[in-house]
Amino acid sequence: MSESPVDVGLLTPVAVGNDEAVTDAAFLAALVHAEVALVRAHEAVGAAPAGTADAVQAGLNAAAPIDAAALAEASVAGGNPVIPLVAQLKDRVPGEAKTWMHRGATSQDILDTALMLVARDASDLVAGSLHETAEALAAFARAHRDDVAAGRTLTQHAVPTTVGLRAANWLRGVRRAAARLDDATRALPSQLGGAAGTLAALVEIAGTDAAARLPAAYAEVVGLAAPEAPWHTTRWPVTELGDALVQAIDAVGVIAADVATLSRTEIGELREGSGGGSSAMPQKRNPAASVLIRSAALRAPQLGATLHLAAALAVDERPDGAWHAEWPTLRELLRLALGASAHAASLAQGLRVDAAAVARNLGATRGLILAERLSIVLGPVLGVPRVAAIVRAAGEGEDLEALIDEALVEQGASAVDVGALLDPANYTGLAGDLVDGVASPENETLRAP
Amino acid sequence: MSESPVDVGLLTPVAVGNDEAVTDAAFLAALVHAEVALVRAHEAVGAAPAGTADAVQAGLNAAAPIDAAALAEASVAGGNPVIPLVAQLKDRVPGEAKTWMHRGATSQDILDTALMLVARDASDLVAGSLHETAEALAAFARAHRDDVAAGRTLTQHAVPTTVGLRAANWLRGVRRAAARLDDATRALPSQLGGAAGTLAALVEIAGTDAAARLPAAYAEVVGLAAPEAPWHTTRWPVTELGDALVQAIDAVGVIAADVATLSRTEIGELREGSGGGSSAMPQKRNPAASVLIRSAALRAPQLGATLHLAAALAVDERPDGAWHAEWPTLRELLRLALGASAHAASLAQGLRVDAAAVARNLGATRGLILAERLSIVLGPVLGVPRVAAIVRAAGEGEDLEALIDEALVEQGASAVDVGALLDPANYTGLAGDLVDGVASPENETLRAP
Amino acid sequence: MSESPVDVGLLTPVAVGNDEAVTDAAFLAALVHAEVALVRAHEAVGAAPAGTADAVQAGLNAAAPIDAAALAEASVAGGNPVIPLVAQLKDRVPGEAKTWMHRGATSQDILDTALMLVARDASDLVAGSLHETAEALAAFARAHRDDVAAGRTLTQHAVPTTVGLRAANWLRGVRRAAARLDDATRALPSQLGGAAGTLAALVEIAGTDAAARLPAAYAEVVGLAAPEAPWHTTRWPVTELGDALVQAIDAVGVIAADVATLSRTEIGELREGSGGGSSAMPQKRNPAASVLIRSAALRAPQLGATLHLAAALAVDERPDGAWHAEWPTLRELLRLALGASAHAASLAQGLRVDAAAVARNLGATRGLILAERLSIVLGPVLGVPRVAAIVRAAGEGEDLEALIDEALVEQGASAVDVGALLDPANYTGLAGDLVDGVASPENETLRAP
Amino acid sequence: MSESPVDVGLLTPVAVGNDEAVTDAAFLAALVHAEVALVRAHEAVGAAPAGTADAVQAGLNAAAPIDAAALAEASVAGGNPVIPLVAQLKDRVPGEAKTWMHRGATSQDILDTALMLVARDASDLVAGSLHETAEALAAFARAHRDDVAAGRTLTQHAVPTTVGLRAANWLRGVRRAAARLDDATRALPSQLGGAAGTLAALVEIAGTDAAARLPAAYAEVVGLAAPEAPWHTTRWPVTELGDALVQAIDAVGVIAADVATLSRTEIGELREGSGGGSSAMPQKRNPAASVLIRSAALRAPQLGATLHLAAALAVDERPDGAWHAEWPTLRELLRLALGASAHAASLAQGLRVDAAAVARNLGATRGLILAERLSIVLGPVLGVPRVAAIVRAAGEGEDLEALIDEALVEQGASAVDVGALLDPANYTGLAGDLVDGVASPENETLRAP
Repeated sequence: MSESPVDVGLLTPVAVGNDEAVTDAAFLAALVHAEVALVRAHEAVGAAPAGTADAVQAGLNAAAPIDAAALAEASVAGGNPVIPLVAQLKDRVPGEAKTWMHRGATSQDILDTALMLVARDASDLVAGSLHETAEALAAFARAHRDDVAAGRTLTQHAVPTTVGLRAANWLRGVRRAAARLDDATRALPSQLGGAAGTLAALVEIAGTDAAARLPAAYAEVVGLAAPEAPWHTTRWPVTELGDALVQAIDAVGVIAADVATLSRTEIGELREGSGGGSSAMPQKRNPAASVLIRSAALRAPQLGATLHLAAALAVDERPDGAWHAEWPTLRELLRLALGASAHAASLAQGLRVDAAAVARNLGATRGLILAERLSIVLGPVLGVPRVAAIVRAAGEGEDLEALIDEALVEQGASAVDVGALLDPANYTGLAGDLVDGVASPENETLRAP
Repeated sequence: MSESPVDVGLLTPVAVGNDEAVTDAAFLAALVHAEVALVRAHEAVGAAPAGTADAVQAGLNAAAPIDAAALAEASVAGGNPVIPLVAQLKDRVPGEAKTWMHRGATSQDILDTALMLVARDASDLVAGSLHETAEALAAFARAHRDDVAAGRTLTQHAVPTTVGLRAANWLRGVRRAAARLDDATRALPSQLGGAAGTLAALVEIAGTDAAARLPAAYAEVVGLAAPEAPWHTTRWPVTELGDALVQAIDAVGVIAADVATLSRTEIGELREGSGGGSSAMPQKRNPAASVLIRSAALRAPQLGATLHLAAALAVDERPDGAWHAEWPTLRELLRLALGASAHAASLAQGLRVDAAAVARNLGATRGLILAERLSIVLGPVLGVPRVAAIVRAAGEGEDLEALIDEALVEQGASAVDVGALLDPANYTGLAGDLVDGVASPENETLRAP
Repeated sequence: MSESPVDVGLLTPVAVGNDEAVTDAAFLAALVHAEVALVRAHEAVGAAPAGTADAVQAGLNAAAPIDAAALAEASVAGGNPVIPLVAQLKDRVPGEAKTWMHRGATSQDILDTALMLVARDASDLVAGSLHETAEALAAFARAHRDDVAAGRTLTQHAVPTTVGLRAANWLRGVRRAAARLDDATRALPSQLGGAAGTLAALVEIAGTDAAARLPAAYAEVVGLAAPEAPWHTTRWPVTELGDALVQAIDAVGVIAADVATLSRTEIGELREGSGGGSSAMPQKRNPAASVLIRSAALRAPQLGATLHLAAALAVDERPDGAWHAEWPTLRELLRLALGASAHAASLAQGLRVDAAAVARNLGATRGLILAERLSIVLGPVLGVPRVAAIVRAAGEGEDLEALIDEALVEQGASAVDVGALLDPANYTGLAGDLVDGVASPENETLRAP
Repeated sequence: MSESPVDVGLLTPVAVGNDEAVTDAAFLAALVHAEVALVRAHEAVGAAPAGTADAVQAGLNAAAPIDAAALAEASVAGGNPVIPLVAQLKDRVPGEAKTWMHRGATSQDILDTALMLVARDASDLVAGSLHETAEALAAFARAHRDDVAAGRTLTQHAVPTTVGLRAANWLRGVRRAAARLDDATRALPSQLGGAAGTLAALVEIAGTDAAARLPAAYAEVVGLAAPEAPWHTTRWPVTELGDALVQAIDAVGVIAADVATLSRTEIGELREGSGGGSSAMPQKRNPAASVLIRSAALRAPQLGATLHLAAALAVDERPDGAWHAEWPTLRELLRLALGASAHAASLAQGLRVDAAAVARNLGATRGLILAERLSIVLGPVLGVPRVAAIVRAAGEGEDLEALIDEALVEQGASAVDVGALLDPANYTGLAGDLVDGVASPENETLRAP
């Protein structure tokens, strides 16, 4: 093979070092495993003689490994790699055992099963990273439970919130995504239906009873869920996993969006543990992990859409292109999820708060971040128009506390503790409880997988 | 308001007559309902005086209805319709009750809650149509359980299948989608967090204990799930529903793809009950419902992707555009799901099989659709090369049965019943069982919601 | 018609007030116009008697207008509104003239032509808004040509730039998008091909020569480009327009992204002229136009993708769903472009710079924004390691100018003007020229359409 | 590097053998070329001493090649491969020449330039395949100019068309796409702006005049278009190319959609030259190239959408993720275009017509495919109701010609030549002219690039 690999990660730094589970080599290994496992399933239902699968495996072990790039080249004519793979595998297996290879199966049985195997392994790694992320976020949320900070809506300071509540919200998104990914992963089925999903060849080969037991036996050998029926054109296993992966990337994407924003030079409330430097501009503290995660978050939804299109266009007993569009799309989605979740875990573990910047920003509107509170508390005392006038004057630069004091004196309402009223720490509502509800240790125990 | 409505359905025939639940009028009603319900929740937790909500409702009942188009116009300045709506509602409510309107809430609380109300009602209708579709498909699958037909892969006849199995596969997809949609719908939460999701204003107004009980009370009044926490920037309720809606459209899309294909003039195996005619070309039997469903299936996945993008970009305590991108996107997705599922139900109810066409097509390759079986059964008897030669000769026009007979006689293998061997009805594997497994009456009972 | 309109704009504030050109009413008018124009074209080539089109128009003028919602309802059976429309139009036209209505045409001829008419009118409005935006941006860029500001990469201060250059870059994007949109709009063709794009019915009716002249005559009557051939399944007119619309939205989207960011409370360099206020939180200056524009920018690309999918799946002589998926998608894209470009124009016209904030931010790193320059200029004098040490020390809080002075004295390199070296205004490179190259008055004249 | 390549093509058979131009190795070579070319440009404007670039190149030639996978790994920390690449290149270059490497540039200058170099080379290959496709389609259209065939709309026979006209329509789409791709490719610019797009470092290094000439000099060295200005956040070069690539894939996608459909076992009008076989089912003639092309056509639009999203979100002077999302997306789009267009060329070159199947299908409705013609021609003679009755009766199985004959006799209208009337070859309208207009040899000469 003269052609060099298309992709070693140069254009996808978010995934580099995290995508071993979804390489073409991993996929090829899964294809081979799916073929051997089918022989083992034939044994399990009593169709193939005992020892056949071991003989197959021994033949493969003794022979030269399959070359993935050469296999790719050979796959063009028929449009999928299983056709040439079967020929190459049979060449490596001696005698009677060879006749049991790929017996009664169709290419899609093997390819779909291998795809699910790769997907399961990769998804479990993603789930692991999500759980690490969650653990770190819970600790972070607890540590900053009561750090009052400016809450922002539509880019503007609105009312106070806490650093901890922001992290607790991230955590809720990650936990939900992890649970859903787990559900989708556990539901991933093996595939076994034969040429048109009737299992007719398997019935012919093994008899009706054995054939009926084969799909579940096959699922057990490979460790996937037993399918209710062949799903050659009923593609929810692919789209449900795709949706869960996109949701996982969304969940860490929103963390990255916040961290990137709050790391801005002018804001500076957060800093990644290991920021990307710049040799020419050492003053920069690039939120490198956030940038990488965001590069994934902007790509993932459209990949998920392609999986759905393929599902909706799965015509006949095997479609003419829609199925083929799934493979690289699902792989890229798994890859992005692997990379984004791994970076999210290290981001969450290393995230640092600049308390001084948090405090400085909280005071940037010189008390006006409490305007909503003033209208609630002082409105009944001073009248709504007067409160509005005070806020307006403060917005033009006058001292808010002095204006309020003056108005209260005029009104003879000296009982109000203006200092406490203007303390943002007194206007964080249920922020602490909302942190505890998701990030307290007992909660963590409860929800860990 | 001089401007005419943008959309009365002229460009979206798939949804016409099925989208009443998601009109702007329905959304406006939900907004108003969300505002009144908040007052009722304040009462429920003991913050507002008993009777306040009834006073509010009475005021609204007595006053002129809100004009949706005028409200839309007024919403431009602030970017969302709740801001001007609150002003208009307060104008309609007298005295003390007015002060309890929108009390402690932020626009997003009301808008998200209204969106969820509309989504819940629409999704329940979609689920109803999916259940009707499923019921009709189950009956169809049972009725055609043993109708042998050509199975097709990559556009070519492969091996036999049955009309019933094809429908059973559609049914499995629809059932799965309905279950998932139901899960997503039941999880739709109300929203209540105040300006930055801390409930600070509500604590100020009602006290900590009452404020803590308010979100659940609010959820109960509107009949949505109680949220774990405010989800202003944790958008899984939107994306999970979006994913489920896309999956529902996929599931009926694949039916439409098959029906459109099998209705082709040259194939003619299926016909929609009420086909679209053409006055100029009365010979046409356009698969009109399939066409409409497909128009939705090609659009839905990209709408789902937009929801995910919005979720991944939900920065700060309320994002600067991402939230706003959700509203029309989710509505259009609900609308497509309403239309596509309703047409799927009537398509499934009216679908007819042309048995003669099924039989004619099954015989189109003059027996070669059984080539796979011949290699399994005759390979051991005649040798694989001889079987291949027979198939090749038949492919060039010779009579398959005669070629086999001749070879068997040569081989002295006269015990083979060639007629039975070449009967496609004997090579449908587990098709019947696969139909029974999903479409038998007991199964239906089991799975009905 | 009992059903209320689906969409009066309540969920799409970005477009409210700007989308009259793409309402269903506008589309219905275009459909009617396309039908009348076809009669006129028949006259133009000598097929229909002189006066026929006037008689048709007179009949329509005298009769009740078509009800769009009722027409939408009637369009469901056949899947498109032209079929029932023709019947309704014929009911309104007397005598011989009636026979010339829709003569030789297919539904797609009329629908595609009407879609192109609506698209042309709307695109011209979008182009107008883009030109207004460009004019305002040019003036803004000139006014702020030399306002030095912090340049930011990956959220961090990098090196200085100017307020004017940032606007000049926006301007280049808008100009390019406007030119491309203009090209796409001018290329929009009318459609006339008959049932399968052969013009066979038209040849039968009008003779070969007249039929051959009809498409160009039709194009002339409606004021669209004459098509090279019927394009029923060659959909580049739709996708090229779609691409240009998305590009236009991208171009204003990037302005909105920058304005929203630079309007953040902590940054405050820019402010929209008419910011969205908040009654409860009067300190907020929401970048309301930017938020609306961003809501469009996040949706448009996926709509463009749907148009391409429809184009790639345009099977047969008219496809079974792909064509139908185009209509609402193109309309929504036009609508978003209308809204986003109109808001961009007013945003650009009202945009204000807070010079004090610009200066404050520029100084936020206490000179380190010039670190790159220091390494270029001082590296050869002090050695790279020494410069790096200085920058590092300054990063930890020491005074940059003092550190440099000290090092230069040590080195005996007193000729360097450290004050000038550390003046950001001396390190803006070609920013001024880059502004002049696009925003100078002569340039504007040159490029105006 | 222990990690194996992610992608050698196993999951993307459409591109295997056609994507050498877009491998990571090709991209790495382009990065290195972009760095050396910058030194050469410094020479060209008189900034760097003559011979510097040759010294750089000599140093690189003499040293070990850069390892792409290791570089990918090193790129994670900073988020892009240029940062570690520069360090590795400098290690390989001796003395003074080393100081001119990457001088005044930012990572984005090099990465964008390299991306454009790869894009240009790949796009030229795509254009070559499109021209081969067009040439073959023109010959095919001429050869089958007058082969009358059934025209189909909404899956149903409508009126006759010709095999040639269908191909001519494909050809028009391919020609348009090729022209647009050529425009986009010729416009691809090099990038040179320095850290924030002001060229400040270059002015510092080379002086204002030389710096002002540098971008054009750089463009000339690498053979790309000279940019009007740095386009770090003005991303139309990427999106316009992306749009053109998607349009190219659409154009061949619609061919594949038609070929796959017309290759169906029941239709059989077309056959790919080298169909994919199936060992187990030798009767199958899988339209393998069409399947591969369709797998690309279903994926490309969503990749194009991602490029637009990245463009619309290109905030600041370099965005925090949007830029990074472009790289792998553009590469995958180039790759799909390379594969799909190459397969389209061979498909077009080998495409065969089964004339017997064409004729058989044309007659499948026993004359009713001429129903439209009958109503035009016989309507005035027999009255519209009578014609409708005849067509209806024929639809129920009666002999169409006999029914017409009988009616004409009744009417005394014996002059009508019913045989000619019912000959589909007499009802193909302008099909021949429409073929000639695009596929005649003179036309081809005119349009060749």
